[in-house]
Amino acid sequence: MQFYFKVGISYLRFMIKVVLLGAGNVAYHLAKAFKLSSNINFVQHYRRNNKNDAYFELDIPKTDDLNELKIADIYIIAINDDAVTSLSKQLNLTQGLVLHTSGSLPLSALQCENNKGVFYPLQTFSKEQTVDFKSVAINIEVAHKKDFDLLERFAKSISNYVYEIDSFQREKLHVAAVFANNFSNHMFKIAKDICDEHNISFDILKPLIKETAEKIQNIDPKQAQTGPAKRNDQSIIKKHLEQVSGEQKEIYNIITESIINNN
Amino acid sequence: MQFYFKVGISYLRFMIKVVLLGAGNVAYHLAKAFKLSSNINFVQHYRRNNKNDAYFELDIPKTDDLNELKIADIYIIAINDDAVTSLSKQLNLTQGLVLHTSGSLPLSALQCENNKGVFYPLQTFSKEQTVDFKSVAINIEVAHKKDFDLLERFAKSISNYVYEIDSFQREKLHVAAVFANNFSNHMFKIAKDICDEHNISFDILKPLIKETAEKIQNIDPKQAQTGPAKRNDQSIIKKHLEQVSGEQKEIYNIITESIINNN
Repeated sequence: MQFYFKVGISYLRFMIKVVLLGAGNVAYHLAKAFKLSSNINFVQHYRRNNKNDAYFELDIPKTDDLNELKIADIYIIAINDDAVTSLSKQLNLTQGLVLHTSGSLPLSALQCENNKGVFYPLQTFSKEQTVDFKSVAINIEVAHKKDFDLLERFAKSISNYVYEIDSFQREKLHVAAVFANNFSNHMFKIAKDICDEHNISFDILKPLIKETAEKIQNIDPKQAQTGPAKRNDQSIIKKHLEQVSGEQKEIYNIITESIINNN
Repeated sequence: MQFYFKVGISYLRFMIKVVLLGAGNVAYHLAKAFKLSSNINFVQHYRRNNKNDAYFELDIPKTDDLNELKIADIYIIAINDDAVTSLSKQLNLTQGLVLHTSGSLPLSALQCENNKGVFYPLQTFSKEQTVDFKSVAINIEVAHKKDFDLLERFAKSISNYVYEIDSFQREKLHVAAVFANNFSNHMFKIAKDICDEHNISFDILKPLIKETAEKIQNIDPKQAQTGPAKRNDQSIIKKHLEQVSGEQKEIYNIITESIINNN
């Protein structure tokens, strides 16, 4: 019995105490990941109001008062970019590492007295889709080197892919992610519009889209490219341009040109 | 013994005799799929020369003479679009269904005396990547209704996803596929360029790209959209535009505008 008791104590001591601040999509998926991790002691959830409590389904202490935050190793802020600085200014903590989760804010957006860091999970979060955090790339940065081990241990508690990225690189990474995620998704949207317009099931394109993303897991995207622009097949390009108009035509033109230029 | 013999005979009679014409990427992956299918009797491989024979690794009769084609149920032409009509004109067959595999050619591109059809596998084929044909969408069309059953049975022998699409729809589908595949891949390429330029590992973006494609398997791409353009977050958009130039800036601008307009 004593043996187990001792293990229990040292185990609890090893666990990272975490307070989560926020109630949006990122906070929601983080909360789920914290509950699943055996290295994280998820001690409190701060949110401005109880509107999303039922949705979050957390059986841990909650507060809407920044002066009532519990003692923790890590305070992780997952709220709108615009609100991060102002919330951080209101923090009145004597210890703990404060993190924001934004891809587009520098570390200096945190303006509290604490030690600071960034924990940027590079993923597209929506409420409809569950996320396996184990395969989400977490990009971390600390203001003081001494905090790195804690932050890395924390990040590795929920993901297998942890990268150290500074504020400058994170800014660039965020732009790259807009191309890789938002803009490619918009290409899927246009493809669906074309299908809808001509009574073609978008399902036909789904395996192709899956394969497009699979392919670049192992092959350089430049090498993976195929199609009329890659072949500079002007007769097909001309035929396609006759079939689209307006915005679609403009986008077809500019991306085709860019593929040809990069060949 | 007699029993097995009889089963063997009827089984062979049920199998679809196929001659493959072509030695490019599509032909290569088709050949692999034919070998794996228990419903297909792959009787001959026609190619202009023996250059790719070692690569194809086919232990079946080969020919480079269109006058020596064996009797078959299906002759499937998987060559460059430009060459399809001229090859079809040289065919001198008394029977069999002749198919082309192009997304951008109408059925009428086939100019032989035979019955004709189209077998368009919607996938991005490259030599480096193996393809599981079972999950490739096959789009079929026949000139004569009576050939539909044979073509459908043939397509279903190698894929679980078979769709009937006419020449007009196929033309539109091909444009949609360029957006869904080639153009989204180019977004990945630009993302990688940005990463490379700033010493960021492209690996960081790979889970995000996978998730982007996964997400739209179940959610409408319009609903799946996230990011600064979707939120019309002009301060982030402005920041991003300061970080890109030339072609990247032009593409960032036009797609962002299109996402905002479609919101």
